Amino acid sequence: MGERWSLLIIRHALFRGVTRFGDFQRSLGVARNILAARLDRFVEEGLMERRPVAAARGPYHDYVLTDMGRELLPVVVALTHWGDRWAAPGDPPVVFRHADCGGAVHQQAVCQDCGQPVAIHAVQAHPTAHEPSFRRPT
Amino acid sequence: MGERWSLLIIRHALFRGVTRFGDFQRSLGVARNILAARLDRFVEEGLMERRPVAAARGPYHDYVLTDMGRELLPVVVALTHWGDRWAAPGDPPVVFRHADCGGAVHQQAVCQDCGQPVAIHAVQAHPTAHEPSFRRPT
Repeated sequence: MGERWSLLIIRHALFRGVTRFGDFQRSLGVARNILAARLDRFVEEGLMERRPVAAARGPYHDYVLTDMGRELLPVVVALTHWGDRWAAPGDPPVVFRHADCGGAVHQQAVCQDCGQPVAIHAVQAHPTAHEPSFRRPT
Repeated sequence: MGERWSLLIIRHALFRGVTRFGDFQRSLGVARNILAARLDRFVEEGLMERRPVAAARGPYHDYVLTDMGRELLPVVVALTHWGDRWAAPGDPPVVFRHADCGGAVHQQAVCQDCGQPVAIHAVQAHPTAHEPSFRRPT
């Protein structure tokens, strides 16, 4: 929530296929120490993996999204829309489009049973046995 | 991404209407200093606001989500699904249900033009004038 560089780095990796340290750095204008710390953390958390580049090009490696990282796409789309609305209204840095028809893509809550779109106020969260129990305020 | 307590706190506020420091604390089992730091940050960032509680009950205030905070719902749903799959497979702490029919709610990318659901690989991100320009690796 609000970790701006992390979102931008993951977005560049997801949608532009950026994998090189230098390309992230130039493209985003992020300080090298910040970028290095973020990429290290992504690798540690399993979102990216280091992949060696052909030796002839030097002792480099690429930072490549794992499946775990790639599946952040719906989170990135939702967070981008939220940011467009609240953090930088009027200045969306990116728009998401449907490859088939070019239409704008939005995230929508959909019911798997009735197939209807679900408005925010009609989404209910039900805790399972794995959620700490909640005591109502007295 | 991966800031576990922040997600849990916002989720409790969104779906259970928790507003009291002590209720967050007991319900989540989070250390008081961590909880205080997170709530302070949410207020600073505009996701929550402090609202005074009737004086008879002591010098307390509630932490209430703002519109900006409430609209994180799609992000929270997407992040929860991602976490269920990658962080705690098999142990979803929460399931999201449609209030009208009880069906499971999922986030789905939908095209605003053709109305079709959009698969992950068919979502394209188009930079606008507000995105730093990207130079392809040479």
